[in-house]
Amino acid sequence: MDKILLAHGSGGRLSHELIKGYLLGYISNEILCKMDDSAVISLAGRLAFTTDSFVVKPLFFPGGDIGRLAVCGTVNDLATSGARPLYLSLALIIEEGFPLGDLQKIMESMRNAATEAGIKIVTGDTKVVNHGGADGLFINTSGIGVIPDNTNISGANARPGDKIILSGTLGDHGVAVMAAREKLRFQIPVQSDCAPLNTLVESIMEFREYIHCLRDPTRGGLATTLNELAGQSETGMIIYEDALPVKNAVRSACDMLGLDPVYVANEGKMVVIAAPEKSEQILEAMRSHKYGRESAIIGEVTAKNPGRVIMKTILGASRIIDMLSGELLPRIC
Amino acid sequence: MDKILLAHGSGGRLSHELIKGYLLGYISNEILCKMDDSAVISLAGRLAFTTDSFVVKPLFFPGGDIGRLAVCGTVNDLATSGARPLYLSLALIIEEGFPLGDLQKIMESMRNAATEAGIKIVTGDTKVVNHGGADGLFINTSGIGVIPDNTNISGANARPGDKIILSGTLGDHGVAVMAAREKLRFQIPVQSDCAPLNTLVESIMEFREYIHCLRDPTRGGLATTLNELAGQSETGMIIYEDALPVKNAVRSACDMLGLDPVYVANEGKMVVIAAPEKSEQILEAMRSHKYGRESAIIGEVTAKNPGRVIMKTILGASRIIDMLSGELLPRIC
Repeated sequence: MDKILLAHGSGGRLSHELIKGYLLGYISNEILCKMDDSAVISLAGRLAFTTDSFVVKPLFFPGGDIGRLAVCGTVNDLATSGARPLYLSLALIIEEGFPLGDLQKIMESMRNAATEAGIKIVTGDTKVVNHGGADGLFINTSGIGVIPDNTNISGANARPGDKIILSGTLGDHGVAVMAAREKLRFQIPVQSDCAPLNTLVESIMEFREYIHCLRDPTRGGLATTLNELAGQSETGMIIYEDALPVKNAVRSACDMLGLDPVYVANEGKMVVIAAPEKSEQILEAMRSHKYGRESAIIGEVTAKNPGRVIMKTILGASRIIDMLSGELLPRIC
Repeated sequence: MDKILLAHGSGGRLSHELIKGYLLGYISNEILCKMDDSAVISLAGRLAFTTDSFVVKPLFFPGGDIGRLAVCGTVNDLATSGARPLYLSLALIIEEGFPLGDLQKIMESMRNAATEAGIKIVTGDTKVVNHGGADGLFINTSGIGVIPDNTNISGANARPGDKIILSGTLGDHGVAVMAAREKLRFQIPVQSDCAPLNTLVESIMEFREYIHCLRDPTRGGLATTLNELAGQSETGMIIYEDALPVKNAVRSACDMLGLDPVYVANEGKMVVIAAPEKSEQILEAMRSHKYGRESAIIGEVTAKNPGRVIMKTILGASRIIDMLSGELLPRIC
């Protein structure tokens, strides 16, 4: 057997063989292995709960694959509420004929990302659709995490005077996926930044009373994320073009493709909006984490222009940075 | 706008318009409306956590649609651990060009099922794939529920002597979907049994110390479910053909299509395996619930033949009922 058959989604014998023989081995743990219809976990307190489906094309790209993306995306969404991510669900929709070897590579990648993030995959589902009914493989992960006491982090909590910190360079993921899809060759290859950011967030949680918003700028890029936060918080935001970290290779690729890095998706970056009095300490803590080395303060929250994001350009002009309109890069995650 | 565009999945302005203008209104609640990347919920104790993707074809069928199915399927998986389902996530993968009117009908159906089950949809995700990249609409729901004290229900807990109770007729969902897909007309139309079974389970939870296994016989049908339970519990099982409730219309359809009702999917039925001393009381409680009126004791758990399910036929013979092999009815849920 080297390809997925429709019967692997029957719920019957072949489903069990696929799950027990090829999938479970990668992500096995004592909760998942009970094989009941729902996992039983013990938790108490305020929990974060989130879901994300992944339809990225192609499935493998420089710096990651759909499996790593599916773990990191949901881990990062949990981390944006300050939560410690603990448990994930995993639901696969597989197209008939999908190579089993690819599925195994993706499962291995999920295992590695789950190990890195310190989370367990505790419940799952596998569906198979007929050839042509889906594009290879779609993955959904949902996740649960525990929010520490004295944490009140929400997109609605930005306050005028807060500093906006970005954990690193913009646009790496979007450009890497785009290049892989269109088979573009750049002089300096661009790798996706896809990474689990929960330990980065944990490293600044000692300052949690000063952290107002956390959000990972994925689809729609930094521009869309800041517009969301400005809208939810009913504040304005100013960012400084010369403070935005962008790799040279990404900048060249964006120039060539007519893209603006502030609209390109990231999968391993976090926006932190924090009270000014602790922003330098938070920045320092972020810079000492492997996924935050290039962290920078990129702007601040204003009382003026509520709901709007304004960029001070290198040339000194002010430009309104709107939410992404239209679709720049479909199926980027 | 009457069709979904690729840009509705961009994460940008059109995504927000789709979500706020067309989706949120149906399932709105104070947690979901915060619009953060993860929902914050307060819970304590032993929790059930489950996930399910839905790829049913066609999306609308007599007795339900993919929306009702997506709520009920996950609610029922939570109920199989004895949990009270509380919160769902909702992730949509939509094909470019999908009619917005159909999406709204499906959202309405989800709202109605969620209201009936008493659960809230608290977090979500929307992806759009290019035309031809998916077959209309796929839905993932994940769910969280709270397990009451003194509950120890698992597929591994069946004991010799236990009674096997089934909550109603077999095969209604599978036959209804099959008929809709193939445009078959039966003399008596068959409706899917798709229903949330959490209140049925709640109605027997006063006997929870006597309830050993709960499972909803979906893909693979009753036969596959009992094989799973027999395997997990390392017991045998005997069922009596003449005790199996099957509607005449379903039986005729199965005869015509060459299907055996024990292998056909159900979406509103529960298998209850319980200690014999309370099985009559549990049966009585189930029969007084609207989704359990045709409940019946259909067999018992044996020490003999561990891992095997044997049917005593109407003619008095014994037949091994194996797990479903091959694929009977693809994309039934």
